Amino acid sequence: MWRLDVLTTPDWVARVETRPVELLSDHAHCELRAAASAQALIVKYTEHAALVQRMSAVAREELLHFELVLDELAKRGGTLLPARANPYAEGLLAARAHRKEELLLDRLLVAALIEARSLERFHLLAEHLHDRELAAFYRGLVPSEAAHQALFVELAKEHYAAERVQERLAELRAAEARVLRALPFDHRMHSGELDPAPHARTGGAANVRP
Amino acid sequence: MWRLDVLTTPDWVARVETRPVELLSDHAHCELRAAASAQALIVKYTEHAALVQRMSAVAREELLHFELVLDELAKRGGTLLPARANPYAEGLLAARAHRKEELLLDRLLVAALIEARSLERFHLLAEHLHDRELAAFYRGLVPSEAAHQALFVELAKEHYAAERVQERLAELRAAEARVLRALPFDHRMHSGELDPAPHARTGGAANVRP
Repeated sequence: MWRLDVLTTPDWVARVETRPVELLSDHAHCELRAAASAQALIVKYTEHAALVQRMSAVAREELLHFELVLDELAKRGGTLLPARANPYAEGLLAARAHRKEELLLDRLLVAALIEARSLERFHLLAEHLHDRELAAFYRGLVPSEAAHQALFVELAKEHYAAERVQERLAELRAAEARVLRALPFDHRMHSGELDPAPHARTGGAANVRP
Repeated sequence: MWRLDVLTTPDWVARVETRPVELLSDHAHCELRAAASAQALIVKYTEHAALVQRMSAVAREELLHFELVLDELAKRGGTLLPARANPYAEGLLAARAHRKEELLLDRLLVAALIEARSLERFHLLAEHLHDRELAAFYRGLVPSEAAHQALFVELAKEHYAAERVQERLAELRAAEARVLRALPFDHRMHSGELDPAPHARTGGAANVRP
């Protein structure tokens, strides 16, 4: 299995666990977005029967995870907060090629990268959270997230040459690392580790609730 | 259980069953759209915990049906066709109120009406299709569709007075009947029974593949 270009430090867990309801609500929205992205692939690529079938199963699994995250939220007295702009996902989408013939490649690899980053964070949370019940919850999600990461790359290899997939994956891994390094810390699943700017005014990236 | 204002004749089944792959592909897209609509309600109404939880379960069930419809397509040598404009759904969405305080009411009741119309068509298909295997498939979907129709009205009553729900449901039932009566026949789940215009040029409503 390939690795991400930049790894998160355990300090990120210490910071993010101070507001578990915000982390879980953001995580719930990530699951919803992942489901919607899988469904968008179905509508765009109706002619690829295997992709269509597998994306529907992925979408159902993401929705099931969404419901599990809601349960963890409820246990901690929280509910789903309003959706916020997602500068991490936006940064990755902006890195996609505009060449029509490689758009599917980039869609699949960006999905694989988001799954890979979620997986990295789930591992860290499972290992370092002081809330051991929540740590166990994140450990439970690891196998499915790892399977999704592998599935997206496998689908890419069904549609493109293996060398091209590896080459493009390396480029997009570098782009993902650049996006993440530029993001301030926030109580969300795909936040960066920079200190937030003291007078940040933008709702999306800054550590300020809208 | 309330009834729709206009009922489909069994002739519709005789016409639609001549192109089962087109019917099934359109049905598959209906399931995808129903899932996406349920997910859209979650994102718009994050503060309503019961609605959020139930819409996620509905979306998963619609995706499961989508996969079942794909199986029926595959058995008949078909695959999912590209998505087409949906004049039935567009007509219903246009009938929604613009009053912000009743937008949720209309969203829920339009969803209930689409489920009710699908249910009416599933019943007809189950009874009159010559392909008895496909008829059995549609009979199998009836209980879930009926449960969804009831759920959307029940959710409306959790957020609005029962009399207001009944009053608005009557208005929207009338709007649904107007939309359907104006639609030409097509090999799709929510087509009308009018003869298509001989020189129709618009891809959405006309009986012409794009």
